[in-house]
Amino acid sequence: MYELAIIGGGPAGVAAGVYAARKKIKTVLITDIFGGQSLVSEDVQNWIGEISIRGEKLAKNMEAHLRVQEGIDIKSGVLASAVKKFGDNFSLSLSNGETLEAKYLLTTVGSKRRKLNIPGDQKFEGKGVVYCSTCDAPLFKGKTVAVVGGGNAGLESAIDLTHYATKIYLLVRSGALRGDPISQEKATKSEKIEILYNCEPKEILGDMFVRGLKYLDKTANETKELKLDGVFVEIGSIPNSDLIKDFVKINEKGEIITDPRTQKAGENIWAAGDVTDVLYKQNNISMGDAIKAVLNIYETIHKGSK
Amino acid sequence: MYELAIIGGGPAGVAAGVYAARKKIKTVLITDIFGGQSLVSEDVQNWIGEISIRGEKLAKNMEAHLRVQEGIDIKSGVLASAVKKFGDNFSLSLSNGETLEAKYLLTTVGSKRRKLNIPGDQKFEGKGVVYCSTCDAPLFKGKTVAVVGGGNAGLESAIDLTHYATKIYLLVRSGALRGDPISQEKATKSEKIEILYNCEPKEILGDMFVRGLKYLDKTANETKELKLDGVFVEIGSIPNSDLIKDFVKINEKGEIITDPRTQKAGENIWAAGDVTDVLYKQNNISMGDAIKAVLNIYETIHKGSK
Repeated sequence: MYELAIIGGGPAGVAAGVYAARKKIKTVLITDIFGGQSLVSEDVQNWIGEISIRGEKLAKNMEAHLRVQEGIDIKSGVLASAVKKFGDNFSLSLSNGETLEAKYLLTTVGSKRRKLNIPGDQKFEGKGVVYCSTCDAPLFKGKTVAVVGGGNAGLESAIDLTHYATKIYLLVRSGALRGDPISQEKATKSEKIEILYNCEPKEILGDMFVRGLKYLDKTANETKELKLDGVFVEIGSIPNSDLIKDFVKINEKGEIITDPRTQKAGENIWAAGDVTDVLYKQNNISMGDAIKAVLNIYETIHKGSK
Repeated sequence: MYELAIIGGGPAGVAAGVYAARKKIKTVLITDIFGGQSLVSEDVQNWIGEISIRGEKLAKNMEAHLRVQEGIDIKSGVLASAVKKFGDNFSLSLSNGETLEAKYLLTTVGSKRRKLNIPGDQKFEGKGVVYCSTCDAPLFKGKTVAVVGGGNAGLESAIDLTHYATKIYLLVRSGALRGDPISQEKATKSEKIEILYNCEPKEILGDMFVRGLKYLDKTANETKELKLDGVFVEIGSIPNSDLIKDFVKINEKGEIITDPRTQKAGENIWAAGDVTDVLYKQNNISMGDAIKAVLNIYETIHKGSK
């Protein structure tokens, strides 16, 4: 029987685990892997205090930092497959058949980026296929890139890239842009951005790294190729909120609605990171919010709810 | 003329600077030193991803990470001494006589911990004299410590320390505890905590590290000594909100009231970190909130206020 179960081993989960252990909260942390979405990055340049670090190394550092903490149980290599209420507590079923009980729950399970699901898409992930312009745009200085997605995320990504890339193809599946008019205007006015409408990406091409993209030009009904150094996939993400959706409020994007000061999401439930309705999805933000959650849980344990 | 002026070079300021530069916001950052309050720590163990790091090394890492960013002007070794409105912009006077203008302002100037102002107090800072139990309690495993302060911060610090220290003296200047009744009860019930009322700390004793504390027992009117390995000073802190108090709302603690989702604090002003009304004051939290501020400023620049 635990006081706190943390689900997730990305930056938010690890930060929460480190703080919970140091605060001597009786804690279990459940995760399949460590490091979260940054794990696949070849070069993370916005982890504050590190000029440049590989995602894998960052994940190892996080895991090591968590594992030296005393008094936290770590269940790694497993998933939480179901969460139920069991009296006053939560009962968690794990993918290995184990069951755990905890009084408080903190979910930091992040989100899944929508993938293109075309050949090369997985092979080149982190090797030119990327999902976050705020994180990765500066890596493409002087390069030619494609952005897939004609909504706000795609537009912002393309605009971000104008500061770095020399040429940006914006691939839109339909015949028109979506997203804010002001972003549409900026994208259409930029001399660096070429918008290709009615395009269906078909295959990511490359050797060690992305070298191009094959797509179907639906207007001409012709398969064409672009020579590229990178592909930014900006077709949305799916928060992993399903597991605890019965106990919290979910917004129209599938994100868990949290109190932004405490990260509280429901009775005895907290959430932090990309699974929540936080406005900006970034490693450092997820960690800070996860620590807010733990310190609020600590207060709840010691003083009752605020 | 800058788009953004960031005041402060602690974790929040550096995080903001790194993100602002990467987002190609025309930015100036003003700070006297880098690293913030952690600078004096001998051993930071809760910087996520680092099992243990000296405050000085952490400060150097932060500064280095900021200095490799292109397109940000850094004014270090100086203070912002006055902020005025100049038309639509802010005009900042620096301690070196320089004047700058910026459209947007982000303050991350933190807070000053109230000090004991007694002999040894400064000499042993970070060498046994510490100010944050959430940060430093685990360093005092098996040790004897004193906590100075009979309010909530002192009580919570003493209770935190019961998980690590073998003996905790709680020194209270008056004849009674303040703070939440439930915390008072926990502190008085703990066998590890000995509360000394009507005590006036007079001198921190030590060699390379804290070894004791001299205090005046006002009841007996006698100077006494405690043998100690550490002193937690928990007598409050003063947010550095004076500089921009005319442009924001300040709460009863002197903290800048911010929107916790965007960190916006007033017209064209944002704030993050210990200077704000954020519930918990921690490096990782300050960084996350500072990045929220920068991404919100970026949106404001590109799309107008939200």
